[in-house]
Amino acid sequence: MNNRLIRALLKQPVDKTPVWIMRQAGRYLPEYCATRKKAGDFLTLCKTPELACEVTLQPLERFDLDAAIIFSDILTIPDAMGLGLHFVEGEGPKFHKPLKEPKNIQTLRIPEPEQLAYVYKAIRMTRHELNDRVPLIGFTGSPWTLACYMLEGESSREFRQIKTLLYQDPKTLHHLLDVLTEAVICHLKAQIKAGAQAVMIFDSWGGILTTSAYQSYSLDYMTRIIKEVMREYEQQEIPIILFTKGGGGWLQKIATSGCNAIGLDWTITIGEARKCLGDKVALQGNMDPAVLFGSKERIRKEVATILDSYGSGTGHVFNLGHGISQFTSLENVKIFVDAVHELSVDFHK
Amino acid sequence: MNNRLIRALLKQPVDKTPVWIMRQAGRYLPEYCATRKKAGDFLTLCKTPELACEVTLQPLERFDLDAAIIFSDILTIPDAMGLGLHFVEGEGPKFHKPLKEPKNIQTLRIPEPEQLAYVYKAIRMTRHELNDRVPLIGFTGSPWTLACYMLEGESSREFRQIKTLLYQDPKTLHHLLDVLTEAVICHLKAQIKAGAQAVMIFDSWGGILTTSAYQSYSLDYMTRIIKEVMREYEQQEIPIILFTKGGGGWLQKIATSGCNAIGLDWTITIGEARKCLGDKVALQGNMDPAVLFGSKERIRKEVATILDSYGSGTGHVFNLGHGISQFTSLENVKIFVDAVHELSVDFHK
Repeated sequence: MNNRLIRALLKQPVDKTPVWIMRQAGRYLPEYCATRKKAGDFLTLCKTPELACEVTLQPLERFDLDAAIIFSDILTIPDAMGLGLHFVEGEGPKFHKPLKEPKNIQTLRIPEPEQLAYVYKAIRMTRHELNDRVPLIGFTGSPWTLACYMLEGESSREFRQIKTLLYQDPKTLHHLLDVLTEAVICHLKAQIKAGAQAVMIFDSWGGILTTSAYQSYSLDYMTRIIKEVMREYEQQEIPIILFTKGGGGWLQKIATSGCNAIGLDWTITIGEARKCLGDKVALQGNMDPAVLFGSKERIRKEVATILDSYGSGTGHVFNLGHGISQFTSLENVKIFVDAVHELSVDFHK
Repeated sequence: MNNRLIRALLKQPVDKTPVWIMRQAGRYLPEYCATRKKAGDFLTLCKTPELACEVTLQPLERFDLDAAIIFSDILTIPDAMGLGLHFVEGEGPKFHKPLKEPKNIQTLRIPEPEQLAYVYKAIRMTRHELNDRVPLIGFTGSPWTLACYMLEGESSREFRQIKTLLYQDPKTLHHLLDVLTEAVICHLKAQIKAGAQAVMIFDSWGGILTTSAYQSYSLDYMTRIIKEVMREYEQQEIPIILFTKGGGGWLQKIATSGCNAIGLDWTITIGEARKCLGDKVALQGNMDPAVLFGSKERIRKEVATILDSYGSGTGHVFNLGHGISQFTSLENVKIFVDAVHELSVDFHK
């Protein structure tokens, strides 16, 4: 088994820097688009384990990636809670029944495991198909990020609903985050039980908070999740990656969550992040996805710069700083992945 | 004259912390909405000096603000360059003729001063009406931010056009930024000549860059602007505020630009920013605009927290970390402004 990903996340020596790509099973792949078309829509694709398994494996056929990540969506949890997730072409996720009133929050219940069974089935199928070729990553949205979507009803620029609740009625918001935290813990444990070998928490909207609100409305809940999951799986070394987009100013706080690795967006220099954190955690990232719109030389140069910035030794998982754009050329993805392997050898001697 | 703003920006002692609000002449004010309706649309309001003057003064009638900021738009420069600015209700600014081709960039010319004469006339009228009651702030977009809008044609999440140019053809992008830098220098000098007593550079999109790209595609150009403007007006002490949204990780770099003050969004703790910078520059900000959706007590508490975080002494201009939301209640704005004055006295003894 190619175990570079797990080893790097656990800060064990590796021969080359492992690399995978956020949203690697996505619209830049023609075969993904074909399977999605066959499924009819995005959510059906998520909910059909055979098809989710199929698209999870697709990028591995084209590129020398060191991990697979199960094809799913962070909003499966609120969908299972009855909010009615759907996707409007070109507009992203929306809910039929966003949480307009505090009373809707009070009556929310943690999903039953069978409501998300399609995720666990897809993981089992994918592990079987992978046959230990590379590790499989499971994932979840952070409670804060799920709450953002559940209150706004869709993606937002201003996040007025959730921020109003935060500043007007923090108790109700904490109740919601509490319920979501329990749901996330169950969901991650079930993914691990089904075969996920590492898990990632996507805190996509933690970066819209003040430092103190980030701590109490996002990081504290993620810390609880990490502690709970690690307690149950402490013998199995399932590394946990925490990614707060825009969280570059809070790295030291994030490292105290107990996570094994911190995901970095591209606005921070990875070498500075490492310097600030010592060798406490592994780091995942952090190339600007737009570099993949550049020339071959530009891509290789940027890969070299990031490898050099991180420096020698283990604890680096190469990735983009955000999901890959649907407009990325397949050729450039191959150049990128191969450059990471080729140029990283010298940093592991 | 209430000169608290200028004194704080120049780090001279003040009796109370000065406060103004980004987008203080905006849609949360019913009288602003009435004037805008009279004008017909946003751009006509900008281009009619009598009306721009009228709305600039409106918030001062309601609130004890320590500054006025001329009512205008950062995109007046590209509009004067012929890109055809217009505003679509609920969608923000758009250009009829975005820069689709490199050849469109090569033929761009700096606007003639008379093309932006409406801004300078509005400043002269407003200075006359203000009669030294409070200082008047002029402003501009940063070259990088203007280029983002000019290439994307509208606001964007992914900034694919400009990032593609950055990674594929940096020379052409530098040419564009060079022309915009000259245009911004002319525009700021003309605003100061017309009567602006401080100026602010809004780098709304600098935060989407990597650290090294921020330096070479945004900060270097802003540094050139600051140097040029200061060279011409060095006798007159016209303070310059630089605001890069999302720039909290780059404060030390920003301070080397020569600006008098750095604008902060709400994702950084102002006391930590001060500690990191020493007393090199003044700081402006940085309350989350969403705090104004909270209760009276919550607003006063947040004002107290920020004042306390900044600590004693001069060099703090209180503001929000972003423009005020149109959904803010007038009552809460008054509570906010008055709280800054009332609670800051102790920090200036």
